[in-house]
Amino acid sequence: MNTRELVELGQQLRVDSVRVSAAAGSGHPTSSMSAADLMAVLLANHLRYDFERPDHPGNDRFVLSKGHASPLLYSAYKAAGAVDDAELLTFRALGSRLEGHPTPQRLPWVETATGSLGQGLPVGVGIALSGGRLDRTDYRVWVLCGDSELAEGSVWEAAEHAAFEHLDNLTAIVDVNRLGQRGPTRHGHDLDAYARRFQAFGWHTIEIDGHDVDAIDRAYGEAISTKGQPTAVLARTFKGKGVEAVQDREGLHGKPLPDADEAIAELGGRRELRVTVQEPPAARLLHAVGEKHVELPRFDLGEEVATRDAYGKALAALGAGREDVVALDGEVSDSTRAEAFAKEYPERFFECYIAEQQMVAAAVGLSTRGWVPYASSFAAFLTRAYDFVRMASVSGAGINLVGSHAGVAIGQDGPSQMGLEDLAMFRAVHGSTVLYPCDANQTARLVAAMADLDGIRYLRTSRGRSRVIYGPDEEFPVGGSKVLRSSGTDRLTLVAAGVTVPEALAAAGALDREGIQVRVIDLYSVKPVDRLTLRQAAEDTGCLITVEDHHEEGGLGDAVLDAFLDGRPVPRLVRLAVRTMPGSAAPDEQLHAAGIDAESIAAAVQLLVEQAVVR
Amino acid sequence: MNTRELVELGQQLRVDSVRVSAAAGSGHPTSSMSAADLMAVLLANHLRYDFERPDHPGNDRFVLSKGHASPLLYSAYKAAGAVDDAELLTFRALGSRLEGHPTPQRLPWVETATGSLGQGLPVGVGIALSGGRLDRTDYRVWVLCGDSELAEGSVWEAAEHAAFEHLDNLTAIVDVNRLGQRGPTRHGHDLDAYARRFQAFGWHTIEIDGHDVDAIDRAYGEAISTKGQPTAVLARTFKGKGVEAVQDREGLHGKPLPDADEAIAELGGRRELRVTVQEPPAARLLHAVGEKHVELPRFDLGEEVATRDAYGKALAALGAGREDVVALDGEVSDSTRAEAFAKEYPERFFECYIAEQQMVAAAVGLSTRGWVPYASSFAAFLTRAYDFVRMASVSGAGINLVGSHAGVAIGQDGPSQMGLEDLAMFRAVHGSTVLYPCDANQTARLVAAMADLDGIRYLRTSRGRSRVIYGPDEEFPVGGSKVLRSSGTDRLTLVAAGVTVPEALAAAGALDREGIQVRVIDLYSVKPVDRLTLRQAAEDTGCLITVEDHHEEGGLGDAVLDAFLDGRPVPRLVRLAVRTMPGSAAPDEQLHAAGIDAESIAAAVQLLVEQAVVR
Repeated sequence: MNTRELVELGQQLRVDSVRVSAAAGSGHPTSSMSAADLMAVLLANHLRYDFERPDHPGNDRFVLSKGHASPLLYSAYKAAGAVDDAELLTFRALGSRLEGHPTPQRLPWVETATGSLGQGLPVGVGIALSGGRLDRTDYRVWVLCGDSELAEGSVWEAAEHAAFEHLDNLTAIVDVNRLGQRGPTRHGHDLDAYARRFQAFGWHTIEIDGHDVDAIDRAYGEAISTKGQPTAVLARTFKGKGVEAVQDREGLHGKPLPDADEAIAELGGRRELRVTVQEPPAARLLHAVGEKHVELPRFDLGEEVATRDAYGKALAALGAGREDVVALDGEVSDSTRAEAFAKEYPERFFECYIAEQQMVAAAVGLSTRGWVPYASSFAAFLTRAYDFVRMASVSGAGINLVGSHAGVAIGQDGPSQMGLEDLAMFRAVHGSTVLYPCDANQTARLVAAMADLDGIRYLRTSRGRSRVIYGPDEEFPVGGSKVLRSSGTDRLTLVAAGVTVPEALAAAGALDREGIQVRVIDLYSVKPVDRLTLRQAAEDTGCLITVEDHHEEGGLGDAVLDAFLDGRPVPRLVRLAVRTMPGSAAPDEQLHAAGIDAESIAAAVQLLVEQAVVR
Repeated sequence: MNTRELVELGQQLRVDSVRVSAAAGSGHPTSSMSAADLMAVLLANHLRYDFERPDHPGNDRFVLSKGHASPLLYSAYKAAGAVDDAELLTFRALGSRLEGHPTPQRLPWVETATGSLGQGLPVGVGIALSGGRLDRTDYRVWVLCGDSELAEGSVWEAAEHAAFEHLDNLTAIVDVNRLGQRGPTRHGHDLDAYARRFQAFGWHTIEIDGHDVDAIDRAYGEAISTKGQPTAVLARTFKGKGVEAVQDREGLHGKPLPDADEAIAELGGRRELRVTVQEPPAARLLHAVGEKHVELPRFDLGEEVATRDAYGKALAALGAGREDVVALDGEVSDSTRAEAFAKEYPERFFECYIAEQQMVAAAVGLSTRGWVPYASSFAAFLTRAYDFVRMASVSGAGINLVGSHAGVAIGQDGPSQMGLEDLAMFRAVHGSTVLYPCDANQTARLVAAMADLDGIRYLRTSRGRSRVIYGPDEEFPVGGSKVLRSSGTDRLTLVAAGVTVPEALAAAGALDREGIQVRVIDLYSVKPVDRLTLRQAAEDTGCLITVEDHHEEGGLGDAVLDAFLDGRPVPRLVRLAVRTMPGSAAPDEQLHAAGIDAESIAAAVQLLVEQAVVR
């Protein structure tokens, strides 16, 4: 498109943004209007995209990091012929694909859900990593950012990651409209302030007037031709550009325009320009989608192996059998044991350094290109990325997250390093799977099973060694459990997972010697739980004692309740969990202090027997 | 101290770091040895600190952001005479104050718990804000950072915040030892790389040899005399400095030295230097510690008021009555309504822009100086700061966090903006309090009550208006609940909180008209829960239906279980919660789609009655 047409297209995008927000009675038209020219030039002259084939491997990838500017995105879809005007006007209505903030669950052209600011660029880096290092096709990744969101540290994790990896296929377009939600940003229209920061992190920067379509056009061209580093196009714009009543004014964030008809008139009225978006070049996916045979590691009964070690070995085995598996780690791969994969498949391993948000975002980005990512850190430090995990679930992204060094069982390092909230955090994520193995063979099987699940999959591993109690051919379906000990005279049921399984077994043995029979269940699948087995145990024994190396809320103790939430009789329940703030101590001292070791479990059972609480 | 003494002190700190790690059989001596000279010069020549009066308002504040270098910190305490050698050797043992990573819960000289990297500088900014803007005493804040942790985005949120606020009382000392846990950092010994970044964010930088005590001494002096901006001292160091077997070598992170005796000999043997740390200048706290009368806002029965509006008004009222209350917000104060406080008390309001990690860290920092912070954002976006919340709890910090726009009830904006995991997230934090009011008077009372609690206090507010159902003089003890409807013939109990309270009441009314009596409990205190009232309801009605605008895990439904975990009979339980991924829709459509509106509740009750599940 030429200058005049681009100007017209920008105005059309503004008009349509005003229209959809007026129709919805809510939305962010002013934030759309500032970026309309940036979007118009991209759509008409630079983006290579086949809207009929969103999965085309050669397609450029566009991420609207400022997800609230969804009116602009949907107006661009209309200009490209992907949605019609009638659908456009369903914006924000019940059942519409055109949500307040775009999500790939509803729209095939959206790469990742946005709306939590500072996440688009990190995910864009993941997509660009895929393009540059794995797919080796020359698609570009374009990320439209707001200026406000540059205050999020995650943006600078992304900036660091992108420059270090020389991602010259990545362009950040920053719509510097000077106004956040509440008022002016820290740097207003000072483009140099942003340029200094991006340059310091190793980016090429271009500063332009974001309403000068020729300048925008040249900037995009320069970004495409810049080699060896990513480019940030810093565009000075006005929020609400083109409508006097709202342009560059405070207090109008997230509100329809006061008079839509008048605004549309001022913008020159409705237009029906149709953009022919450039076809992507021919390309193909490099990784095989078919599954080969995976030869998982096998561990001998009685062997002492840490589940984190089993994770590393299983991941490496998965890497051998499946070319679509990739791994990421937050600079602790010697601890999480992801290093086993890194050594075998360095080209499919991504060192994310100490930047857990960026690690999860990169995993999400890689997943959008068909890769099956496993990202690992200490369980405690995955809390750093909770907003990214939450948004990944909104995206419907399929990613595997592995948290090592769970619980007080890590010992001397103390509470800062102990994952004690991770089960609660991951259970609360919509559609998630939460797994917590107790031995090496179980770990290996679950690591392989995770790959083919939907949504957020979380596996919790332990630092210390534990005895292998399952044979290498035992199967562990997700949603299952193992009854490790059972008799016709069980007086209650111990429900354990991970490090508390051997403790529960030891307690059961000790109790047996005193004539007290108890059932022991290994609830390795914390979400979904094995409802049938738990209900049977409730029916048979009447009382469940959960034992977990986790804070008392949101973990195993709450998980068992899922089996009894339809109004059926609920068994008696007792919860053994970490109730105090731990300090430093040896692992066995920690378990004892928390009241979750064999001795504490046996004592709790005996108390219940003495009190005649159990049968 | 002169050059020779400083060198000796540095060696002593190394020797003691080696000794304590050897005694413990774990710990991070090599990470301590790199920073020993940096610490020696600070302790001997620049820090002003009275170890006998850690609360002295004139004390400088030191934060060990690289918390794993605790051997160095404790060795410095010994050199200052604060701990003796016998205690020093209890490092990492059960019951010792000298934990693997330092925490203020155990040691009075520790400002904030560290060990999750990238948190010390953000908290240090909060302390420096207190010093600069509130306390107006001239204490300095010194933060010793590792180089690896500069990959965390939170460090750049802190850098941005500190420079924007011109915190010239803050010095970051970066121990650039080139090696992370797993291997080399991204930038190795390239001090310029870090200098460019800090300068771009507005800091003064000084690059030095971190083992040249005179250079260190001059750098600290320059930092002290630099006005108008914070200073970063970037020090080139060697991990394991001084011991050939470990110096600058990979693979030795977090491990005692292979031969401690030999290492101590190589370092010149044990020393018993005692440092006389400079006294702090006379100073006094500016804020009153005594409580004045707080005149809370009063709302009329039947009035329609959003709980977020009540929050803003109550916070402003608290600000009037208590000079120790401060407020922070993540650039959404027009939405959270913290703006009501900001307008009245701008000097006690901290705009943190879109940087939730930094907001929570600043709140923690302010709390260390005796302020009572209220920090607010959308409930959804507080997930961004989960690791900071977790670490604040390890610190034992007393902070109030307020999440607005909770649940599907926000309506059209869609899932990215809906807090649906917040109750689970905050419940799982050790020692936390979780409150969820349903009307304006209840909100006001709870906002005031929060101020005097210990630990992490979380309040959940709603976007839309709701009818005032409690009088302004009603009291709402934390750990309590309100029985809103009750009869001798209740067939079950509805347990609701926040937006589901009016829905539950409406359902109860509709059921009443069909001859079905149900009890209704407003469980505004989600943690701790009102055990007695829930147990009474269980005894009287036999069945509890929880109704919550939250994902089904970790929220209200799990919270009620806390009343029944001692082996007593558990009532039948039914959970109504958000089980699917919401889209955009009007608030009432959202509640209906999630199955938590009055109609859905009544239908669920009728089904249970028909199935004869309830009495």
